[in-house]
Amino acid sequence: MSGIQEADDHHQSVSLDLLKQKMADFAKERDWDRFHSPRNLLLALVGEVGELSEIFQWKGEVPRGLADWKEDEKVHLGEELSDVLLYLVRLSDICGVDLGKAALRKVELNAIKYPASKQYTTHGDGAVKMCD
Amino acid sequence: MSGIQEADDHHQSVSLDLLKQKMADFAKERDWDRFHSPRNLLLALVGEVGELSEIFQWKGEVPRGLADWKEDEKVHLGEELSDVLLYLVRLSDICGVDLGKAALRKVELNAIKYPASKQYTTHGDGAVKMCD
Amino acid sequence: MSGIQEADDHHQSVSLDLLKQKMADFAKERDWDRFHSPRNLLLALVGEVGELSEIFQWKGEVPRGLADWKEDEKVHLGEELSDVLLYLVRLSDICGVDLGKAALRKVELNAIKYPASKQYTTHGDGAVKMCD
Amino acid sequence: MSGIQEADDHHQSVSLDLLKQKMADFAKERDWDRFHSPRNLLLALVGEVGELSEIFQWKGEVPRGLADWKEDEKVHLGEELSDVLLYLVRLSDICGVDLGKAALRKVELNAIKYPASKQYTTHGDGAVKMCD
Repeated sequence: MSGIQEADDHHQSVSLDLLKQKMADFAKERDWDRFHSPRNLLLALVGEVGELSEIFQWKGEVPRGLADWKEDEKVHLGEELSDVLLYLVRLSDICGVDLGKAALRKVELNAIKYPASKQYTTHGDGAVKMCD
Repeated sequence: MSGIQEADDHHQSVSLDLLKQKMADFAKERDWDRFHSPRNLLLALVGEVGELSEIFQWKGEVPRGLADWKEDEKVHLGEELSDVLLYLVRLSDICGVDLGKAALRKVELNAIKYPASKQYTTHGDGAVKMCD
Repeated sequence: MSGIQEADDHHQSVSLDLLKQKMADFAKERDWDRFHSPRNLLLALVGEVGELSEIFQWKGEVPRGLADWKEDEKVHLGEELSDVLLYLVRLSDICGVDLGKAALRKVELNAIKYPASKQYTTHGDGAVKMCD
Repeated sequence: MSGIQEADDHHQSVSLDLLKQKMADFAKERDWDRFHSPRNLLLALVGEVGELSEIFQWKGEVPRGLADWKEDEKVHLGEELSDVLLYLVRLSDICGVDLGKAALRKVELNAIKYPASKQYTTHGDGAVKMCD
């Protein structure tokens, strides 16, 4: 399908601003802005996080790279990860938050809080909480 | 601080690949890769969604744009939105999912599922679920 | 159906211990104990919280008592609330936590932290966080 | 402390109705009913599920019974499990749902959906989803 083909060609430069614009257009074309209040979108996000969790729920530990997962499981995983992302982008937009800018700032704050020069030996020191 | 200054300059082109690289570097520099298994990251993501929800929990409905929020509340919101994003980007990377590509594909799938030409009159028809 | 009839008769004395026993029997009869590790159950719980959120996601604020909800929506809500509860009870059991005892203790701790004699005027004082 | 002592004595018969009553009294005594709308409580519940997840997030798989956890970690776990339960009980009450009755009914429905006589060999058959 040409639309999906096109998506493929663009993907190396997928920015948060592009996704924000696509979500805004999508909602406008369907007159869905009226449903997109901050808390509606937040609950939709929580719903998608639930669907993402369901993929992992009965599996016990899974290896990085998911080498033993079937292709359709990985495609499904990509869809649920995307749903979380799309609502997160939309929620940020509706709240007036520049998500890309905020994310870069947060990485900088994390780097100050958890200096690279420090030794982090165990999870017990609380240092492994990358975000808080 | 120059690091944060730099973040500011870059923000117009914040891509998912850039964030992925920053998260990978961050983990490597602190030897945190050992903690970043898929389910560990997923639970960390759920933790951050919880912190995001706490910002909204006692407020009742809030207006788009959050005009009446104090500046420090909006900054805090940006941090929690970022935490969710950063773990989502990291989880995708560790699972071998190209999140940007997957997100563009999902928008295309949504456009097929919910044609722009259709009338969506109420939430009762289930059509307002943008992702599923 | 007589099973559901019976449930009705018992409901005034539904205790956490009764639900714990029912969940343990249920899992044992189906040989599902092998799936019920702490983190599997936790992710299943998150999945159910997602389904609960989906019920509320596009509604905006809803009134207490849900007077304007259709009967089948309220039944569905009861099912999702129950799913969260059942996994919570099962997770507690598998972790060796006496949930009823822990809950009564937590109410006592909350009462110490938030004295009834104090005036709680706004949510801004942080005092409205009943649990933490 | 005598209040906590008392909690201990009662715990064998901790019912959902008892917790419902305690939460209602607690809110009334602090004039917190005004904050306890359905969606406020739902978001507070999501916040507590986040805190529960944080306990497990960097641990990899943990064994049933948590034999190697420190006592204070287990106490903390009991508190977070309780916070989820207390908000779930309160949310149900505010929505007019009899949670105990609903939970017993849901167990019955699950027993019909997943007959005990059937063999459930793998998680792949979808049969291990105890709730849906």
